[in-house]
Amino acid sequence: MTTIKDIANRLGVSISTVSKGLNGASDISEDLRQLVLDTAIEMGYKSKKMKNQELKKLCVFIENMEYTSKNQFGYDLILGFKQAAYRHNWEVTLLPATPELQKEEKYDTYMFKNGFSGAFIAGFTLQDPWMEQFHHTTIPTVLFDNYIPDNPNICYIGTPSTEGIRLAVNHLVQLGHRRIAFLNGSLHSMISEQRKQAYISTMVSHNLPVSDELTANGYYVAESAKYHVNNFLKAGATAILCGSDLIASGVITECQLRGYSVPEDVSVVGYDDLPISSLLSPPLTTIRQDRLELGKCAFSALDILIDHVPISHILLHPKLIIRDSTASCKMT
Amino acid sequence: MTTIKDIANRLGVSISTVSKGLNGASDISEDLRQLVLDTAIEMGYKSKKMKNQELKKLCVFIENMEYTSKNQFGYDLILGFKQAAYRHNWEVTLLPATPELQKEEKYDTYMFKNGFSGAFIAGFTLQDPWMEQFHHTTIPTVLFDNYIPDNPNICYIGTPSTEGIRLAVNHLVQLGHRRIAFLNGSLHSMISEQRKQAYISTMVSHNLPVSDELTANGYYVAESAKYHVNNFLKAGATAILCGSDLIASGVITECQLRGYSVPEDVSVVGYDDLPISSLLSPPLTTIRQDRLELGKCAFSALDILIDHVPISHILLHPKLIIRDSTASCKMT
Repeated sequence: MTTIKDIANRLGVSISTVSKGLNGASDISEDLRQLVLDTAIEMGYKSKKMKNQELKKLCVFIENMEYTSKNQFGYDLILGFKQAAYRHNWEVTLLPATPELQKEEKYDTYMFKNGFSGAFIAGFTLQDPWMEQFHHTTIPTVLFDNYIPDNPNICYIGTPSTEGIRLAVNHLVQLGHRRIAFLNGSLHSMISEQRKQAYISTMVSHNLPVSDELTANGYYVAESAKYHVNNFLKAGATAILCGSDLIASGVITECQLRGYSVPEDVSVVGYDDLPISSLLSPPLTTIRQDRLELGKCAFSALDILIDHVPISHILLHPKLIIRDSTASCKMT
Repeated sequence: MTTIKDIANRLGVSISTVSKGLNGASDISEDLRQLVLDTAIEMGYKSKKMKNQELKKLCVFIENMEYTSKNQFGYDLILGFKQAAYRHNWEVTLLPATPELQKEEKYDTYMFKNGFSGAFIAGFTLQDPWMEQFHHTTIPTVLFDNYIPDNPNICYIGTPSTEGIRLAVNHLVQLGHRRIAFLNGSLHSMISEQRKQAYISTMVSHNLPVSDELTANGYYVAESAKYHVNNFLKAGATAILCGSDLIASGVITECQLRGYSVPEDVSVVGYDDLPISSLLSPPLTTIRQDRLELGKCAFSALDILIDHVPISHILLHPKLIIRDSTASCKMT
């Protein structure tokens, strides 16, 4: 259980400063107060007041997405959501949405029984049992990376995949690459499908070859690379675009194991810009998704839906972050 | 940080010339002053005045969109924007963005000279001169019904046209209509193109005919109907879906002039749900775009962009409003 002392130690301030921050005293700056609150939430601190008060309740359902350490995709996403929610006096409960739970209980029923006013849902695939129910839910619900049309109670949060993939392919084309492979994320995902279409249309717009040999679906783990990198290299790929930074880290390792240098022989681009990206060898060129802001937007969207405004999309621009894993193509 | 000297070096002029250009002195030519300003903005220069002064000025550029009376599309859109902006202590200036102004002055330069921190832009077509400049603007800018990818300073606000058109076509199909005509809005518009694609794909999804005889582009005025309704009726249309409520009001009149009753002989669906919709005879079935909330979202998006968060989309679900201009198809 996190104490005020833990927060004080983390921030390097006195216990009384933390206490002032948590209790809204006027003799510390607004910025410091916010920092104390944000840190308290990140560390899982709960004050007596927070525990006793009947707070308005939201939940976050998370599945197929890691979030417990700062290097994992879900960490900042959930943190941003919680920080924004607590600032508006909402209590947030984090729950796994196992397939068993989803089969056992209807989504709306579960929400109602547990007194939740709305949910933020991250990591669901198109095959999750509740996905079908979201078309008709009456509960304000925000989905990360999934779009349910025609239901005024559902909003989609994410980054436009088309834009991210286009940024990455254009960067590689500018470096002279023509045989650009794409190791996508999992099947059965809306964004994997969008990204595949975006890869194809951007390649076609540059009159570049798209072939089965140069495209594959993996999973969002480094091991995905094992099964595909060799085929890409045999097919003459000089660049490999990946569906996540973890996949890209596996791709770099596989290239190096086979005697190919990155970026001298093969350029590699990741997706997400997780903290590990800059620590890889070489540091990874990637497409940033600002997860902390996405989490905050998810809360804003939920707050707006709870206010009966039928918001359907809040998306953030992705950003190309150029590091050392991409270089001019030797072949040209 | 760009200095006056950097600008002078870039232009190959003296520091005092740059200073005169930035301060609007009268003893340099207007062209040179303009060049200095354009260059300063392009290089990210900020004057002391800009840095010291807490500027809180936004502007709304509006073109090809009426907004002065409650029955016009832009009225609530602008009202919602202004209400939200004033609530957050921003001053809002409403400006026409005539083609002359757009040709005369670069967008970023205009904004810089006039001390605006950001703009909300409504009614622009794909042919407006500034549209090209929006791909590279550094000014926080929110576009209604236009999407500029790959620029973190631009956000798109609107309703997903695909969803709106699908709601309308599905409603007509449920009433038994098969020959559904579509009188779209103006050409050279992103949403007209999206709506056309949505009409085609929804018709195809129901195995219904799409033909040139059943589709046309008009303008957002009632007179558009004159040129097309007769052709639609000759081609056997039993329902006409329109790109706006104004077009729909013209379509109803044209049908009635030709001895066709609405909805007994022909069903008519509008788009927008302007206040007049419920006052037409018969009251109009239409697709609502919540313009007041869209205006508020436009302000929120601008506020977020000004905070350097690269928001790219905020969209609201459209809603089917069923009134008396649609009925079961007699032909089935």
